[in-house]
Amino acid sequence: MKSLVSSLIQKNSSKIVLVVLDGVGGLPINGKTELEYANTPNLDALAKVSACGVHMPVDFGITPGSGPGHLSLFGYEPVEFQIGRGILEALGLGVEVTRNDITVRCNYATIKDGIIVDRRAGRIATDKSKKITERIQEAITKIDNVDVLFAPGMEHRFAIRFRFPHPLKPTASLIEDTDPQKEGKAPLRPNPLNEEAKQIVPVLEKAISMIAEVIKSEEKANFILMRGISSLPDIPAFSERYGLKALAIANYPMYRGLAKLVQMDTPTVEGTVQDEIDFLKKNYNDYDFFFVHVKKVDSYGEDGNFEGKAERISEFDALLPQILELKPDVLIITGDHSTPALMKAHSWHPVPVLIKSPYVLGGLSSAFSERECLKGELGIFHTPHLMPLVLANALRLKKFGA
Amino acid sequence: MKSLVSSLIQKNSSKIVLVVLDGVGGLPINGKTELEYANTPNLDALAKVSACGVHMPVDFGITPGSGPGHLSLFGYEPVEFQIGRGILEALGLGVEVTRNDITVRCNYATIKDGIIVDRRAGRIATDKSKKITERIQEAITKIDNVDVLFAPGMEHRFAIRFRFPHPLKPTASLIEDTDPQKEGKAPLRPNPLNEEAKQIVPVLEKAISMIAEVIKSEEKANFILMRGISSLPDIPAFSERYGLKALAIANYPMYRGLAKLVQMDTPTVEGTVQDEIDFLKKNYNDYDFFFVHVKKVDSYGEDGNFEGKAERISEFDALLPQILELKPDVLIITGDHSTPALMKAHSWHPVPVLIKSPYVLGGLSSAFSERECLKGELGIFHTPHLMPLVLANALRLKKFGA
Repeated sequence: MKSLVSSLIQKNSSKIVLVVLDGVGGLPINGKTELEYANTPNLDALAKVSACGVHMPVDFGITPGSGPGHLSLFGYEPVEFQIGRGILEALGLGVEVTRNDITVRCNYATIKDGIIVDRRAGRIATDKSKKITERIQEAITKIDNVDVLFAPGMEHRFAIRFRFPHPLKPTASLIEDTDPQKEGKAPLRPNPLNEEAKQIVPVLEKAISMIAEVIKSEEKANFILMRGISSLPDIPAFSERYGLKALAIANYPMYRGLAKLVQMDTPTVEGTVQDEIDFLKKNYNDYDFFFVHVKKVDSYGEDGNFEGKAERISEFDALLPQILELKPDVLIITGDHSTPALMKAHSWHPVPVLIKSPYVLGGLSSAFSERECLKGELGIFHTPHLMPLVLANALRLKKFGA
Repeated sequence: MKSLVSSLIQKNSSKIVLVVLDGVGGLPINGKTELEYANTPNLDALAKVSACGVHMPVDFGITPGSGPGHLSLFGYEPVEFQIGRGILEALGLGVEVTRNDITVRCNYATIKDGIIVDRRAGRIATDKSKKITERIQEAITKIDNVDVLFAPGMEHRFAIRFRFPHPLKPTASLIEDTDPQKEGKAPLRPNPLNEEAKQIVPVLEKAISMIAEVIKSEEKANFILMRGISSLPDIPAFSERYGLKALAIANYPMYRGLAKLVQMDTPTVEGTVQDEIDFLKKNYNDYDFFFVHVKKVDSYGEDGNFEGKAERISEFDALLPQILELKPDVLIITGDHSTPALMKAHSWHPVPVLIKSPYVLGGLSSAFSERECLKGELGIFHTPHLMPLVLANALRLKKFGA
């Protein structure tokens, strides 16, 4: 599909806005899903005149992580392009990553007599964590011929980037986590899963012991656990694939990271969804494609807070007219996966989507919800088909064959 | 997909019940299908709160046999895993089959002057047939270095297992039937379709003439016709694939045979559907997954008996509450293919399915029927996707990617 679509790309001046309400799909509690319960007059009106459907990011029954969910929305087959968690974390923290790098997502942990007492070092405050990370960076900048960069994160989290003097093969995670995922156990060793990974492991082991030496007298954060040890996957750039100059507008690092992975522009945007929309307005003339990410919908779903998730949806609904005023040629509203409050977790359920453009049937769905979108003209489809549909609606795909 | 699903399996204590109403899908006569005509208050109530859809066992327009229909339900791509009819027959008759075996489904036939007068030897009584088969077994136990086992079947049918001293390559049917499918013709020779099969043919030919010698004085059953000459296909075990301890509850040999092929436990269960349900109750604590097969729905469909098929459906409906009382975490009700009484045969029409679990939308189908299931959240899908969906609903699949 990729090469067929790429071969048919034509450019024009159309504007495309993709709004991702993270984890928007839900399940009924007392008969209604979060979308059905929320107050969404604007979304519902839009659904009535849009092409609606539900999409499946990975496959039947498969629950997508945020990485596969977004890659799939951007048109990349998520099983083909797998992203290590370390890469996501590093990109999200604004760390530049090249083909020479191994990135690692780390936790500060509390260890006693070689046994992990707390895998998250009591979820120490971000401030405190940041200072410790800076202290480590001062002490360690190089291990053998490998440059080492430490990036502070939220609470007990941080990332490490190991920059080797030569390019590494693109792989997902070919070294196992040192985090045993349970307290009361000793940390694991970074176990290599292929030949190439064996060269990398000694550097990681040295890093672990050098860092432990620096922080050994900390009360809580006296050890580190490594997860998602990974190098950069070989993903073609979004702009080249689709001929679109793309801007990511996301107030959470992870999602800027995901957009950066496909080489969208990813300036740091902070604040509320209103701030994101203001940013969209300000930059509207300078790009063809806008990825606007609304995180909080998912967060409340993960907490099992049905009302809270519905409220975040209602809030977005109230802001939607500001996006409509921009009159994008194609407007897509959807999620990257479902996060039913009922399940307090991501789920495998297909995600409702609407595509508004001048070239849709419409009239099949009476609201923007799981059940109403199921009645729509797009049916149930695999998420990577979304981008070709969007490009077609933007009249950016030529005819195939004579 | 297979390896993705396998890589995400996690175990828990959930119970899954898959009820297969054989050939349940139908077509309208006087405006209603068998499912629409039947009295099904319990199935209809369940459909209202379940995930409904229709599934396609093989492909658009392809009519599945019982083998492909069931393998597809069990999550195996039926074009990839093809089963010889001889294997099915042997397994169904309780014959153990190994990689060293060639199995053949045989008919007793009446032959006169080298021409077949009756392909089924007047459908001789099972008792009589059994005695003849036992007589053959007494006379023949070995051909060259190949052990030969005869298994009596219903009426004119029986099976032969040829056990070679070395393993054979897993293949479907690479030797042609000797049954010309028409009376008034001579039996065919077992024609080999590849090099490997050429070594096997002389044994089959010797068997045919040795058996003919034993039964030549029989009035009706004086010759045999061979069909579905086949070795064991290379199918991964259900339990390993999905991490499920599985029990097949089927009162017909063929369906126990199919379940045995994927290494489910297949004790002999006899009697009615009520007996099958009693068996389910008795074994409910000892397994994770239960395949309950209801044969008679199909039988009446094959006979073109619309009322009879609808009655068998109504009968099952009345028994359904007993299954619901067990409170399975996931209950699936469907068929292995359609058998419209209108067509007196299996057909290509997608098969209605409902999945009941705590994690469904529901509310889209008002009854369990072809037309109402088409409105459901599962849409139209390829049958091998059913098992991943079922595992997801049982919370037995981990998230894919971070």
